[in-house]
Parts: sequence; C-alpha cells; structure tokens
Amino acid sequence: MNPGLHASMMAREIAEQPATVQRTLDALLPLRKSLRELAGKRRHVLLVARGSSDNAAVYGRYLLETHSKVPAALAAPSVATHYHSPIDLSDTVVVTVSQSGRTEEIVTAQRWARSCRAVTVAITNDPTSPLAAEADAALVTQAGPELAVPATKSYTAQLAALAVFATALAPDPEALDDELNRVPGELAAVLNQRSQVEPAVDLLAGDGPILVVGRGLALGTALEVALKLEETCLRPVRGLSYADLRHGPIAVVTTGVTAVLVSAADGPLVSGMTALADDLRRLCATVIGFGGDQEFRAACDLGIAGPRLSESVAPLGLILPAQLMVEMLARRLGLDPDAPRGLAKVTQTDSSPGTSTRRDVS
Amino acid sequence: MNPGLHASMMAREIAEQPATVQRTLDALLPLRKSLRELAGKRRHVLLVARGSSDNAAVYGRYLLETHSKVPAALAAPSVATHYHSPIDLSDTVVVTVSQSGRTEEIVTAQRWARSCRAVTVAITNDPTSPLAAEADAALVTQAGPELAVPATKSYTAQLAALAVFATALAPDPEALDDELNRVPGELAAVLNQRSQVEPAVDLLAGDGPILVVGRGLALGTALEVALKLEETCLRPVRGLSYADLRHGPIAVVTTGVTAVLVSAADGPLVSGMTALADDLRRLCATVIGFGGDQEFRAACDLGIAGPRLSESVAPLGLILPAQLMVEMLARRLGLDPDAPRGLAKVTQTDSSPGTSTRRDVS
Repeated sequence: MNPGLHASMMAREIAEQPATVQRTLDALLPLRKSLRELAGKRRHVLLVARGSSDNAAVYGRYLLETHSKVPAALAAPSVATHYHSPIDLSDTVVVTVSQSGRTEEIVTAQRWARSCRAVTVAITNDPTSPLAAEADAALVTQAGPELAVPATKSYTAQLAALAVFATALAPDPEALDDELNRVPGELAAVLNQRSQVEPAVDLLAGDGPILVVGRGLALGTALEVALKLEETCLRPVRGLSYADLRHGPIAVVTTGVTAVLVSAADGPLVSGMTALADDLRRLCATVIGFGGDQEFRAACDLGIAGPRLSESVAPLGLILPAQLMVEMLARRLGLDPDAPRGLAKVTQTDSSPGTSTRRDVS
Repeated sequence: MNPGLHASMMAREIAEQPATVQRTLDALLPLRKSLRELAGKRRHVLLVARGSSDNAAVYGRYLLETHSKVPAALAAPSVATHYHSPIDLSDTVVVTVSQSGRTEEIVTAQRWARSCRAVTVAITNDPTSPLAAEADAALVTQAGPELAVPATKSYTAQLAALAVFATALAPDPEALDDELNRVPGELAAVLNQRSQVEPAVDLLAGDGPILVVGRGLALGTALEVALKLEETCLRPVRGLSYADLRHGPIAVVTTGVTAVLVSAADGPLVSGMTALADDLRRLCATVIGFGGDQEFRAACDLGIAGPRLSESVAPLGLILPAQLMVEMLARRLGLDPDAPRGLAKVTQTDSSPGTSTRRDVS
C-alpha cells in the first residue's frame, strides 16, 4: 500500500511540522524580553487548558519547574467556571492554551484569572480569537489552519510556544536556544523514518487494552499519544506516569496488554523507563518504545528511535513518530483519521457532544 | 449469601469508618490555630502524594481552592525526586500525604520541599514515621492499623485531615464545623444501606470497559473508586472528570461500557453530572450513579443514594457505598479483596513491583 495515495489531512498536517514549529519559534522567541517584563515579580505560573492543549501544558509545567525553577501547576478549570472562586492570583502568571482561542471554558477561565488579579498569557493559533484579544499577552502559534480533527501541528506549535514562555522566565533565557534551533531539522529527520513505525501498527491493530506510559518532561507526550490513539482509533487507552502505573494499575497488566512507552534519550528518567520495559515484558505485555536510549529500545519488543534532542526539548519531536503511527493505525482499522466518530473540531465540556457548530477545539 | 460469614478485613475496615473519622476529627480539629500560625503569610499550598493518598489530595486541592480561597496544586513528585529542582517555595505550605509515612518517594519529596524553604505538614497514620518526624507539623490520622491492601479507612481519615487543614486556612475556620460534625453519623447511615449497592455488583460483574466519572470536589472520589475497582477487581478502569471525558474519550463510549458516576447532592456540578448520565445512556452505556440528587439518580440506570452532606464534605461519605461495592465485587469475581494480585501494602514507584518487604503503602 502506498500511503501517499491515501494521504489524509492528518498526514499532511503531520508533515508540515518542521515548518510550523520553525515559524512559531521565529515569531515568538523575540517576545521573551517582554514576557519577562510582564511577569515582573510574579513567581507562580498556572496553566489552563483541556485535551491536547492540556497535554501540551503538562510539558510546560515540567519545563517551568525543572528548567526555569518556577513553581507551576495545572488549573482545575471548574474552580473558575463553576465555583467562581475568588482566589488571589496577584503573584501568578496564568497561561491559557487553546488552539482556536474560542473554547468557552478556557475563555471564561481567563476572565476569571484577570478578575483574580493574575497577569494572563494566551497561547492560541488564532490572533483574532477572544482568548488572544483579552489576554495581557498573546503568543500566537504559527500552525496555520488545522483541518483534521486530531490536533497535530497545533500541538507541537503549542509546545514551541510553551518552551518560549518557560525559557523567558528561566535564569538564563537563552540557555536552551541551541537545542531549540535544532528542533525543526530533527522533526524532518524523524518524519523520514516512517518505515520504522509500521511494525508498531501491526502490534496495535488487535483489540487488547493499551497503556501509554511516560514520566517527567515526557509525561505530556505519553498523555497526548494516549488521547490521539483513543480518539482516532476508538480504543480505550490510558496514559499515565510510570510511578502511578507501579502504584496500582500494574496489577492488571498481563498477556494481551500492549504498553507504549515514551522516553527522552537522556535525563534522569530513562533508566526507570528501561526498568519498566523489562518489568512489563516479564508480565507478558507487548512493549513498544518510542525514543529513549539504545538500552531502553533493546528492552522493548519494538524500539522506535526518537529525535536527537536533549530531554528539555525532546517532547517537540518525540510525538511525531507516534502521530505517524496513529494515522496509519486509523487507516488500517478502516477509520477516517481526519474525522473520528463522535467528535467534531469542537470543544464542549458541559453539554451534549456534537450539538455545537462552533469550530473550537482547544 | 450472608456477607458476614465471609467478612474480609477490607469489609471490617470499611465498617470502622464512622469511628475512625470521628477520632481523626477529634484529634485534629484542635490543631487548626497552630496550623494557621505555621502557614503565616504563605499563600500557596502544594500537595504531594501517590495512589489513594493522591486521590485524597485531589479533594484537599478543591476544598482549598473553592472553600478556603487558597491556590493549591498537586506536586509532580519527579521534580523533587529525579530532577532535584531547586524551586523557591518560601511562600508555600507543602502537605505530604502517606498512610504509612514511609513511602520513600514522599519522604524524599518532603526533604526536598524543606530544602526549598517550604513549611511542611505531613498527613500520616503513623506518628513514628519519618514523614511525621521530619515535618514542621504532623496531622496524624486515627485510622488504626490497616491490614487490607486496598486503603479504605486510612483514605477517609486522610480526607478528614485535609478538611481540617483546609478549613484552618479558610477565612472562617469554623464555617464547615456543623457539617463536619455530622459526618460520622452520615457514614453510619450509608453503611446501613448496603443492600442498595448489590445491584451495582451485578452490573459490574461482566467484562466490559469501566469508566468512573466525577468533577470538582467529587473528582477525587471518582479517581479513588476507579483505583479501588482496578486494583481490587483486576479490571482496567479509568477515572476522569466529565469535562475531560467529553473532550475526547467519550468517542469510545458505546454498548458494553459501564459508567460509574459520582456526584455530591448539591453544588454547581450536579446538573452537569445529570446531563452526562443522560448522554451516556443515549450512547448505550450502562450508568450507575452514586450520590447526586433525585434527578441525577433518576437519569441513571441504577442510582445509589449518597450521604446527606453538603458538597464541601460529601466526599468523606460518598466513597463508602463504592467501597462496599468493590469489596462485594471482588468476592463475586472469586478474588481476595484483602490481597490483590501483584500488589503488596508496599509502595515502590521506581523499581520492580513486589521486590520490597517494606510495609509502606502511601
């Protein structure tokens, strides 16, 4: 089968990412000085997002805490949208993340944050959106129109924007620039390794339970792979940290379970991911590994090399082979990767699915 | 079948909860003034926990943000234990939660928090544990020895301790006291409705996927029901917020899925939970509802009344009928609820499961 003959919008948007990430970095890196001034003496960051944007925010949280040494947390949106709790956020920068900038829940949460005296930064793909218009600063991603329902290029553009924001608050804002500048080239290299991914499609085409596991800076990637697999391939999939997995859910791992492990090539968690691969295989799970080092990949039933990027920026590339896998798997299963059942490019978190006509995936 | 003839340790520990919660409230409520003084001008709370304790911490987070108006977040433990990131926490109270007080990861994270200039409060069931010994203040729960592996009475005692901590920081520390004082009596009332729960066991005894859904103050309860079902009944179960469910995973809801919905009887989320029950039934899922109001329960295939407690303290009772259900389901499935496969009362998040002999469930 020649995948080119059946290229989906999702496949085309996956392929655009070296360019869209480059454009996003070019547009946003010059804003770091003004972001630093905007933050001023505020020492906390609170991220507000949902879905793929939330998975991007998980990366932002770890990068802020591990690289920038800034305490960061993910908001509980209902505290804003349902409890309307008047929390003093005068020492906090609130970062909202929404591709469309029109997700009602996120726009409402940003208004709440302003009423709580936060400074707000919106990361969105639409400069004309209410989210961008109402924020103190907008980091507009340069993904271009995204037509497939599953977010791909908008997600990596959000990661790039979050890297810009986090490094703006770091002790040395330029410390990661050499690595960031290497990202677009590494994305292109990863896309050229499409054939590496095909055996993973074979392993996932059955109907057993799927777990996706990462930790630390790569946890958001694992959560995003799980969400993509679930919404695109209509399989119940769970993404989680290996620490949480070992703390209970590992009890249900047995023959028939497929575990997808996601790891950076370096950093303090590769050895733990490798030990997890060993243990999951001992429990008779089938283990597919993305990224990691050679030892990690050797511990998996199938190891797929990730980008040659250090852990702090690896998530910008690590998702790509998994995106390729999800797109191929959807087609293998006879599904349309561009328009999963039951989902539109619409985000509603508080009423019936499919009743809105707004195009506002976050 | 007379359940008394086969009473598990888990069943006995479930039954102790009116007394253990009462003892915990009696022991800890007098400490509020000193907790308030310890916090001083610190305006942020960071909670550190894993497993059931983490689910308790989710309740603490919502109670702090919605009732006490204090910004609160759940820590990413690897930031402490693997990245050793030197974050300035001089404006933060760090609350660690661990039944045993000996979970290595949590003890390490507390040491990290102190080195980052946080004030630390340990919630633990063992006053002789390192967690209690090293914290600036220890809130020692009065659950007594917990012998069954699945946490039950230690979990509700943690909820009580978190309610004490959160109200200590609230504008009016005594505002919830009338409700808190009603909790032990309501727990006893819920335990008397055991027969209500039996039909849920029938509905869950099949092998379809299970979702457990809540939101806001009851989200932690949903996560705890999911974890209990998974580790005790060896079924893959996912717990999540209804907003996250609607944002993607709802795509996989179809015939054969059983959804367990958990709601307080009042508050701003009951109507959303009722709408979710309607939508999930329309998607042909079987819906079991715990708690909520009459309308909510009428929207479910099976509605099980929860405690007559306001939303802020409802989680202390809402978990009880679900604990009863899990214990009965495990026995129905021929499993030992006291000692699930692959788990010991041991928490290790970074090496092979089952290789430690420490008794240190968090």
